[in-house]
This record gives sequence, structure tokens and C-alpha cells, in this order.
Amino acid sequence: MSRRCCFVINNRANYGRIKSALQAVADHPDLTLQLIVTSSALLYRFGNVKELIVQDGFSPSAVIYSTLEGETPSTMAKSTGLAIIELATQFEILQPDFVITVADRFESLATAIAASYMNIRLAHTQGGESTGSIDESVRHAVSKLSHLHFPATDRAAETLFRFGESRESVFRTGCPSIDVLRGLDLSVPEDIFRRYGGVGPELNPHLPYLVVVQHPVTTEYGLGREQIEETLKAIDALSMPAVWLWPNVDAGSDDISKRLREYRERSPSTRIHFFRNFSVEDYARLLNGCACLVGNSSSGLREAGFLGVPAVNIGSRQQGRERAGNVIDVPHDSVAIANAITRQLEHGQFSKSLLYGDGTAGRQIADILSTVDIPIQKRLTY
Amino acid sequence: MSRRCCFVINNRANYGRIKSALQAVADHPDLTLQLIVTSSALLYRFGNVKELIVQDGFSPSAVIYSTLEGETPSTMAKSTGLAIIELATQFEILQPDFVITVADRFESLATAIAASYMNIRLAHTQGGESTGSIDESVRHAVSKLSHLHFPATDRAAETLFRFGESRESVFRTGCPSIDVLRGLDLSVPEDIFRRYGGVGPELNPHLPYLVVVQHPVTTEYGLGREQIEETLKAIDALSMPAVWLWPNVDAGSDDISKRLREYRERSPSTRIHFFRNFSVEDYARLLNGCACLVGNSSSGLREAGFLGVPAVNIGSRQQGRERAGNVIDVPHDSVAIANAITRQLEHGQFSKSLLYGDGTAGRQIADILSTVDIPIQKRLTY
Amino acid sequence: MSRRCCFVINNRANYGRIKSALQAVADHPDLTLQLIVTSSALLYRFGNVKELIVQDGFSPSAVIYSTLEGETPSTMAKSTGLAIIELATQFEILQPDFVITVADRFESLATAIAASYMNIRLAHTQGGESTGSIDESVRHAVSKLSHLHFPATDRAAETLFRFGESRESVFRTGCPSIDVLRGLDLSVPEDIFRRYGGVGPELNPHLPYLVVVQHPVTTEYGLGREQIEETLKAIDALSMPAVWLWPNVDAGSDDISKRLREYRERSPSTRIHFFRNFSVEDYARLLNGCACLVGNSSSGLREAGFLGVPAVNIGSRQQGRERAGNVIDVPHDSVAIANAITRQLEHGQFSKSLLYGDGTAGRQIADILSTVDIPIQKRLTY
Amino acid sequence: MSRRCCFVINNRANYGRIKSALQAVADHPDLTLQLIVTSSALLYRFGNVKELIVQDGFSPSAVIYSTLEGETPSTMAKSTGLAIIELATQFEILQPDFVITVADRFESLATAIAASYMNIRLAHTQGGESTGSIDESVRHAVSKLSHLHFPATDRAAETLFRFGESRESVFRTGCPSIDVLRGLDLSVPEDIFRRYGGVGPELNPHLPYLVVVQHPVTTEYGLGREQIEETLKAIDALSMPAVWLWPNVDAGSDDISKRLREYRERSPSTRIHFFRNFSVEDYARLLNGCACLVGNSSSGLREAGFLGVPAVNIGSRQQGRERAGNVIDVPHDSVAIANAITRQLEHGQFSKSLLYGDGTAGRQIADILSTVDIPIQKRLTY
Repeated sequence: MSRRCCFVINNRANYGRIKSALQAVADHPDLTLQLIVTSSALLYRFGNVKELIVQDGFSPSAVIYSTLEGETPSTMAKSTGLAIIELATQFEILQPDFVITVADRFESLATAIAASYMNIRLAHTQGGESTGSIDESVRHAVSKLSHLHFPATDRAAETLFRFGESRESVFRTGCPSIDVLRGLDLSVPEDIFRRYGGVGPELNPHLPYLVVVQHPVTTEYGLGREQIEETLKAIDALSMPAVWLWPNVDAGSDDISKRLREYRERSPSTRIHFFRNFSVEDYARLLNGCACLVGNSSSGLREAGFLGVPAVNIGSRQQGRERAGNVIDVPHDSVAIANAITRQLEHGQFSKSLLYGDGTAGRQIADILSTVDIPIQKRLTY
Repeated sequence: MSRRCCFVINNRANYGRIKSALQAVADHPDLTLQLIVTSSALLYRFGNVKELIVQDGFSPSAVIYSTLEGETPSTMAKSTGLAIIELATQFEILQPDFVITVADRFESLATAIAASYMNIRLAHTQGGESTGSIDESVRHAVSKLSHLHFPATDRAAETLFRFGESRESVFRTGCPSIDVLRGLDLSVPEDIFRRYGGVGPELNPHLPYLVVVQHPVTTEYGLGREQIEETLKAIDALSMPAVWLWPNVDAGSDDISKRLREYRERSPSTRIHFFRNFSVEDYARLLNGCACLVGNSSSGLREAGFLGVPAVNIGSRQQGRERAGNVIDVPHDSVAIANAITRQLEHGQFSKSLLYGDGTAGRQIADILSTVDIPIQKRLTY
Repeated sequence: MSRRCCFVINNRANYGRIKSALQAVADHPDLTLQLIVTSSALLYRFGNVKELIVQDGFSPSAVIYSTLEGETPSTMAKSTGLAIIELATQFEILQPDFVITVADRFESLATAIAASYMNIRLAHTQGGESTGSIDESVRHAVSKLSHLHFPATDRAAETLFRFGESRESVFRTGCPSIDVLRGLDLSVPEDIFRRYGGVGPELNPHLPYLVVVQHPVTTEYGLGREQIEETLKAIDALSMPAVWLWPNVDAGSDDISKRLREYRERSPSTRIHFFRNFSVEDYARLLNGCACLVGNSSSGLREAGFLGVPAVNIGSRQQGRERAGNVIDVPHDSVAIANAITRQLEHGQFSKSLLYGDGTAGRQIADILSTVDIPIQKRLTY
Repeated sequence: MSRRCCFVINNRANYGRIKSALQAVADHPDLTLQLIVTSSALLYRFGNVKELIVQDGFSPSAVIYSTLEGETPSTMAKSTGLAIIELATQFEILQPDFVITVADRFESLATAIAASYMNIRLAHTQGGESTGSIDESVRHAVSKLSHLHFPATDRAAETLFRFGESRESVFRTGCPSIDVLRGLDLSVPEDIFRRYGGVGPELNPHLPYLVVVQHPVTTEYGLGREQIEETLKAIDALSMPAVWLWPNVDAGSDDISKRLREYRERSPSTRIHFFRNFSVEDYARLLNGCACLVGNSSSGLREAGFLGVPAVNIGSRQQGRERAGNVIDVPHDSVAIANAITRQLEHGQFSKSLLYGDGTAGRQIADILSTVDIPIQKRLTY
């Protein structure tokens, strides 16, 4: 009988990091794809990722609105609670054999809790990686609830063994985000900016441009405004076109968005264009074509590492995460940020790294899900 | 300024396992006790532990009804979600400096999530222990969200180090449940049974009796009825008075309760008396006075180990947990259970064990909370 | 195309009051029955009505656990909130053309809110009746949210017109609860008591017995214990066998249940037998066979009125509700209660009343649902 | 003892419609003001009304984030459910003697349900008025749950009597929104537009301008985009500066906002400036100074009626509501809208109307709350 594999997608980054596995499960003769789209993946403010998912040919089995608007620490907690309640309902209806949760978001944790209390085998990607923000704690907590692990790197797999996860449960598949980049025509389409709307001046994708993505750090809640200020100043000083993506839904997001909106309202003639979203493939093309990625998105380490694109990583959000040679780390300081960007522009392209995978993760994940036999009762291996 | 320490108590076992720490915090000049009573600790069916707490002189800062009735896997998940929503509200009001969560219940996890997303330092007792049931996964997930650990045993502390928790965050204090036993007059009061009502024949505390506590195992959901059947048969066969405590609120509890109620309704003349609850101290006396503890409660390993009381531990719920010499493990098999009880009755009292602590845990915990300085951003030590 | 009619059943009384309409919709060629079973209808403590529903041949489209245990005023409010959240999810999945909500419970209101905010036509039974308790306000609030009304009596229909409900929306069908009684073999089966378990002495259905059903009155919260005390005293004094049904899930239920349990634990040899539930038909037989119905259930006015069974109605819960000649109203006073029962025993059977319907309500409701055309935007007729 | 009066404010319109009563209660020697700010009143997207409230000198007793982002029919229902859960918690903490709920929003209903299930006396403003949208049903449902009514007009009071509300419970005080206008210096400040940010060209408050406010109609969900299109076309055709306020949080809001954002992104040089919010007083000044109010806000009927400002009311949202001579009603048709505006511009100022009150409502409400004695058990007066 076909095994039902239920993926829960909750935001922009999530989707790109699991899309190839969705496809591989959909294509697998012994697996049935179930797909729940939830949280900010449904919201216009955060780029309505659901539309991209549908355009890619997937049909959600269910959608769950679970985002309590406000972006404070307590709304994050409450959105987690609400997501558990709603996911439990859908899991009862869908009766999945496996639930797959991605990374370290509050919805990833909600997914893990609902599945594990309901005796559904839980699989997790990105386990064993280290970062800052509450994501760090959440990622490891999800690992402790998971029955199957698909870590991206060797070191991450090693970390999971140290946690006491069993050898039989850990599969170092690499990250599905890399799969998308392999074999993709990475040339930036002429009309890429026009297709995604957004606000700001028209950009020419064939002139050098920066990409900026800066999310709040929940454990530094309240500092978001001054942190984004430094980045804005640095970008402003560099006189270079920039593609800026709005921050995700974490606590503190509103502080960042407000500052960006004020900036935009006051400097309408700037070189910065703000976007809500790109398709997974277009984001890859955009990255590949950019002069430097700036901010604290993990794509500076994952996708940009694979592509050899220079990245300037700001602050603590990615602290501890493995990276290739393409990354310069800087604090929240406009001068340091601007200097690092300048250095990266001078350096140009880095060599490609396979640190986060060789582009076969999705297929490996599907194959494992189709055959693996794992007990519902977890045990430490110590 | 006095540090606000907020404890969340959610059931009968929880309270006994943390009571001495509550007292020590209340008594500490540099600490302010905050107390949230929630979940089954508020419910008549589960012994209304709140009443005991108030009788002990504590005043709850808040009470939270969070138990979605039904005792199924999905109601457990949903109760967890609801508890997060409600705890976040109370943490916003109470503004604690530390939240202390006990053990491995779904409310323990809800507490951990609400506190950690809200950037409140989280302390955890019983981390690093191993068991069966979903408690196993939940306990470790809570550890990964916690900033401070108060493990009960040396091995548990060692497990937390292996998890990558920092040396500065782990304090092997022993279990506060042992504190209650130290220096307590353990003689069983004449009227102990009369005071707690319950149903069944009157018992004489001075004749040999058994204590039975058997909870559902969530990862074996659906088997509760046949599991309790075996225990019932064994107890029935032994012709000895028994004090039987109703099971906790986990998924599957209803199956067990129903079977016990049917038994009671059909065999009203039996030697078994069913109770909802005892005060922490009276439960200690009851244990100390009994001929053998039967079931799958951790008190067979913790309190009974310290007291040297023989225990027969049934099934997988305590599998992997450290124990002294007082425990015989048996499967869900009436003959095996009855034989093991018989062996324990023949053996009688064991020597006392300090495995789970020397009776000073509460005081140690208060002292640490009053001085410890721990960053809100967690990092693995690897 | 077949119209999807979604009924929401949330407790024992609900089911009996709508069962014939469920059947008529299931049997109708132009209608598709959808059935959501929720709240106390799922709970063992309240008689697990879902089992009866399934035994009657209906298959629930969904079950929703929505009862926050505790039975306080605030848990009632919160259970209402939770039920709205869960019902909205199910309505999105089921896409009903009509939602049918019964009477005046907090789940009836939750159903009404979820349906009306979701632009689903809402039909309501028992609108326009008057009572005490919060049910009074809730019933009328539900009427103001409803697009279709199926009142039981002429006066109730008149009340709805006064409310400004349109002539086209109000259909005086009678109460479906009466349908069950028509043509039913009302002889009490020999084994009726044995089949339903319960606690207390064995009763002989062929000797005179009382039936007692007393629910809490939410607007008199806190008085439940003394109120039930008076009833207990009266029944005790009468030396007659009694079938006692546990109270429903309203705020204050626990006070009543606790007192009944204490009574039972202390007077095990009494003539009272406590039951959780009966099938709709067996409850009708039980009523028909009893010497007098005592308490504050509306079945004293509805079913007992139709059957001509004497009823003693205690307190304010049914105040204002239409009744036939079979009812004596008394306050919460043991002497008054006992005297009224004695008078009713002396009087014996009353003549049958068609006040609450002629037994065709279910069929009428189905016919109307199959053809009615009613706008989604409500307007007052004034 | 001082009576605790708890107001629940949930959006921009709400606050202006109750502010004078807040002030009067705060100033009353026998009353204590409690204030809960919730829902969109906390959100940046909807103008962060909480900031205005605080600037006005009120301190919220509690804030409740209850808006499930998405603005669909089901998120409205779920936000209602969530608000009930959270309000019940706060009512338990605040222990109000009266809860005051405003108008007909989903949060107004949530407030009504939480209060009435918790046996707290509920007072309601704007009861008895007629409109379209789900607001119509909700307003009347709230009236049926309320113990005290403060209707704005004589006809509204009459409607409440017809509903069966008792003479003792209905006080025709007028609408507090009128109080703000009385004695206010209505001259538009020079810097009014600069102070509120927003996007669009700078406007000169001393040249003729329109004010546009158009909310979704939930019972016409899905038509929002084409409806706003007609209004946009009409305004576009008129070549006149316009102050446009974003729509409220109802289902369908996102459709309207998206269309407005697209319009703005494509026609950056237009004469329209978009605002999130104004203080209650500045909104009054803005209205008073404008050439015509366009859209479907009730302020076209209430405040504009009192001020004699011409209004063009579009569609069904205000259908059935009492209005003075200042309003022309038109369907969603750009030509009809443009023609009506032109007619109103030609007409200019209307005479002032006292239909919605004489400016003393707030004081009256406070006085009544300080002395009224009303039973918790409601009864119909028929």
C-alpha cells in the first residue's frame, strides 16, 4: 500500500528547501503526497507562497491559517499553539504515515508536536545545524521529537548522533534546496522584476545589483529597528541597485517592516526595489546573478555557497552554521557592512561548494520514506 | 531586585516532584514565587491537586483550564496548543524572570514553548532521564528548549552534557520529590483512607496492602484496556487489599478508567479501594507503609527507591529509567505480575537508595535561581 | 444537485430533539446528510451519545472534541470559542449548503457563529421559546443569526415574527423530539436497566419509579450544590426507586455531580440508580413508564407533555417555557418538591398534549430544506 | 464600592464611537474604568489605534492579539473564537461589574459571549440599528445577549422594545461618536496630512478634497475587487484630491487592499493619498473640511449627518440604517458614483442633524452604569 507522506509548508524559505522532495514523493510509485500549506505561506504580506506552490503543480490537501497577527514574542507562541490545534485536526483527516517538517520555524515545532503526540512518524530536515535566534533551540527540540532525520551536512548528522539519535534514523541526504539549483538554467530572465510587482524603481537585471534579506532575531527582540538601520545606511552608501525582500513573520518583523516602509515613503527615488516573493527558481537565478547577497538569510550559506555567490552575513542569526568560503561575517554596523560588501564585490565569484548537498536530496528522501521501518517509540542510543 | 520564578504545575505527580522547590523559592529572600496551576491539577476527576496546593499554603498566581476532554492522541496535541496560548497570556501578565517546568508532560512542553518564544529563561527538572511513552521525546525536547537544567541523577546530568548543553547550565541537584521524604514522619495515619473518600471497601492501613498506579502509554495507544486487564487479574488473584489510584490524563486514560469502573461496578465487594488523590506527604506515607507498589508510575523508581519499598514495574513506560534494587520489571502479563508481586512480598523492604537525590534539591534550586547568570541565546557546546 | 445539510449534535438532549430530522434528510432524494458530532456528545462522562448515533446507523462526517474540562463559567465561554475554531475548519471541508443548529447550548451558538460568518445558511430549531439560564439569551441570539427557523409551537413562531424575522423564514414544524414518540412501542423492555450499566441497586422497571434529571442553572452558578441537596432530600424521603441521570456539561455541573457522587458513596444501599445515558427510544420508554419526572429538564415539558406523564419542574431553568397541564412548578425546597411529587403520584397520567408538535416535524424540515430559497443577507421586517 | 466598567475596543471606528463614554466613566466618582484593546486596534496595518488611545491618556488594562491573519470568512469566524478564549481569561482577572461592547463587529460578539457566559452584565451601544453585511445579524445577536442597551436613535430603541428587551434595560442616549464633535475646534490643522504619513502625493487641506472609506461586505464576499474598482474609476474620473482610508479587517479586506496597492504602484502620480488612521478628533476635522465623503462607512450617516457634510453611500453595507438628508445612495457603479459626488459637490453643506444624538451620550452612559440595577437573568417582555 502506498505510504502517505504529509509535508507541512509554512513560509517562503520552507518551500524552496523542500520542493524537490515534494516532487520526488509525488513521482514515487510507492508514496502518496499530502501537502498542508499554512501560516505565512498563505498571506499576501509574506508573498503568498501558496500561489507559487499551485503554479508549480501541487494541490494542497489542506490550508491552515494560523498566524496571529502582531509579530510579538507572545503572538509567536500563540500562533504555535493555534497551529498545533489545527494541524491535529488535519492529521486526523489525512491519516498520514509520515509527517515531514522542515527546519526550525514555530510552525515546524507545531507540526512536530501534533504529529508526535498523535503517534505519526515524524521526519525532519535541517536537523543538527547550529544557528542563533530561537530557531536554534526549536531545531534541536524538533530533532528530539523526530523519528527520521535528513540532515544536510556530515557535521549535522554527527551532531544528531551525539544527541543520541539512532544510526538507523539519520540519513545524510544533503539539503533539497541544492537540488533546485542543479541543472537549472540560471540566466536571469529579462522580465524577472516586472513579473513580481513590488515597489521601487525599475531595476535592470543585467547591471550589477545586490540582494538584501534581513530577518528579525527573536532573541534580540526590540533591537530590530536599529539593526535594520545599519543595513539601510550601508546599502544607501553604496549607490548600487538592490533587490530587497521583506522579512519573515518572526517576532520583530513589524519593527523592520515599518522602518523599511518609512524609508521607502521618504526616499521614493532610491535604488532599492522591495519584493514580497519570487518563485524558487527565480530566486535562485536572482541569487546567481547578483553581485553580493547581504543580510542574515541562510541562503547566503546554503544556496549562495553552492553557487559561489559572495555573501555578507550580518549579526548572530547564522552564528554557528557551517559555511563555505563565500561568506564574510559582520556585526550590525553600517561601516563594517559596507566594507565587507566592497570586499566581496572586489573578490567576485567564489568556487562552488557541495557542503549542503550534491543535488540528490529529494530523491533520497523519497526513497527512504518508501522503505524505512522505524519504531514509534524513540530511545536514546547511549 | 527580587527574581520572579514562575512554576507551572499541571498534575498530581508534578506537584510532589517540585513542592520542596516551591517552598524554597517562597522562603528565599531574593526570589519571588509565582505559581500557575493548570490542566488536570484543576480537575476533580484527577484529584483536584489545586486544593492540596492551597491547603499547603501556596496561592496560585493564575489557574489555567487547558484540558480538552477526551483523552485521545489528538486531544493531547490540542490541549498542548491551548496551554501554549493561555500560558503566553499569563507570562505576559506575570513577567517572570524564570519559568520552571517539571518533567515531561504535554503541559511541560507547552510551558517550555511559551516561555522560550517569549525570551524568558526556562529551567527544567528531570531532564536527561530515559523512559518510554511520548514522555521520552517530550522530556528531551524540553531540555533542548531549556536554559537551566536541574537533573536528578549523575547519569541524567551526563546525558544533558552529551546533548550539547553547557556545563554552566546543568546542576545535578537531585529530585525535589526526595526532599519531601526526608525528615517526614512516615507513619500512616489511622484515618488516611477515610479522609480521601474514594470508592470501595474500607481499608485498614495497618494490615498489608498493595498500592497500584497504572497510567496509559501513549505510544501503545489502543492497548490500554488489555494492559489494565492483566494487572486487574493479577491483583484479583492475590487476595490482598489494594489502594488503586486512577490514571492520569494521557491519551488512553479513558480506556483504563472505563475498565476499572466496569470492574468496580460488577465486583463491589472486592478488596480494592479507588482513590483520586492524596496529599504529597500522605502519598509518601502510603508508599512507605505498603507491601509493594505495582504499576508503571515513576514513583516506583524514585520515591520507592529512596524508601526501599518493593516495586513491580509493568511494561515499557519506565523502560530505560535508572532504578535501584527495589524494582522487578515485568511485561503486561497477569501471571508474571502476580509472581513478581509474590517475590517482592517475600523479599520485603530493600535498602534505601540515594540515586534520585539526598533531599536537598529544592534548596539548591532556589539558590541557583537566585544567582545564576545565563544567556537567553542557547548554543551547543560541541 | 443535492443540497448538503450539515447537522451539529453536541449532547444527549440535542440528539433526541433532532434525530427524526436527521433521518428525514438522510432519506430525502434531494438532500445529503452531513453530521458533526461534538462536545459532550463524544464524552464517556456524558453518556457517549456518539455511540448511540452510530448504533442508529448514522456515520458522523466529523467529530470535534471541544469541551474544555472544568465546567466553570469561563470554561463554557472558552469551549464556545474553541468550538467556533474547529467548526469553521469542518465547514470549510464539508461545504454545506445549510447548517442546522439545535436549541440553545453553547455549541449551538458556536455553530451559529461559524456558519453565519462563513456565509452558510443557518437553520435553527426551538427558536422563540422562553426559559431561564443563559440558554434564554443564547437561544434568541442564535435566532438573530439564523436564516431559517423551525419553531416547535405557535407562540414560539409568533415570538420570532416579533423579533423581526421574515414570514418566509419561519416554519412552525413542531419539535422533532415528538416524532420519535409517535408510533413507538413504548413498553419498557425487561432488561432496560441492565443494558445501560450505571451504579446503584438493580431496579425493576415494572414497579413504580421516578426519573430525575436536574441540570445546573448557569445564571445561578454557585448554588448548584444546595439546589441538588433539596432534590436529593425530597427523593430520599419518598422511599421510591429512582432512575437518576447525570447532569449536562454546563457551568456548575461539577458541583452537582460531586454531591451526587458523595451521596452515592455514602449511601450505597439507596433506591437510586445513576445512569449516563439511554437511547432516544429507551429514554422515551423510560419516561412513559415512570410515575413522575422530577427535575428541570425540558423533557418534562416536551416529551412528558406529549405522553401525559406527570412532571415536577424545579426552579427557574424552564421558567417561561410553554407547558401542558402535566407540570407542577416548585422552588428548590425539599418539602415543596416531595409534596408536588406526591400530588402527581396521586393524580397519575394526564391527557396527551400536541403543544410541541404532532410528530411530523422531521419530515417537514427535510422538505423545506430541499426547496427553500432564502437570501444570505438578513433584514428586519419592521 | 466603585463599579468596574470594562470596555473592549477592537478597531478604529469602535474607538471614536465610544471614546466619550470612556472619558465619562474615567471621570465618574463611582466608576472604575477598565479597558481592553484587542484585534485590529493593535495592528500597524489597521492604524494601530492603541497608540491613539494611549496618546489620549487611557492605559489599557490588557491587550489581546486576536486577529488570525487572512481576512477570509473562516478566519473571521476563528478570530471570533480566539477572542472569546482570550477575553474570558481577562474577564476572570479584571472581574468587571459591567462589560461594554460596541456595535456589531466579530469582536463585539466575542465580547458579548464571553461576558454573558461568565455572568457579567453586558451593555451594548448601537443596538437596534439596521444595516447590511454580517454586521446586521451580529448586532441583533449581541442585543439578545445584552443586559443594558444604549441605542443611538429613537427608532433603534423602539426596535429593541420590539425584540422583547425590557423598558428598564433600554436607554436612548444617542451615539457617543456625536459627543466628540460637539464643541470641538473643527478647523483642519495645516500639518494634518504630514503627521499621519501614508503614501501618495502631498495634499493641501485647504483645497477641496474627498474622503473615501470603503469596507468589504462580508455577505458579498468575493465581489470586493470589482466593487472597489468602480469606486476607483469614479474617483479617478473626478480629478480631485482624495484622502483614502484603508479598509477594516473584515473578510474580503485583502481583495480591496490588494487592488488599492496595485493601483497605487501603477499610478504613483495620482491625486489620492492613502492613510491608515487619524485621531478621533482629526478624523472629525477631516470630515468636516471635506467636500464629500464617499464609500460605505457609517460615518457618512452618523458624523457626517451631524456635521451636515455631503455623503455618497455605495452599495448595501449601510442599507436600512437611518440617515439624515446628507446622503445619496448609489450602487457599485462608477458612473452613478461619480454623478452622485458631482451632485453633492454642487449642493454643498447640508443642515446639521441630531438624529444620532445631541452630544451627551457618554455622560449619560456613565451615569446609568453608576446606578442601574439589572438582573443577570434576562427575560422577554412579551
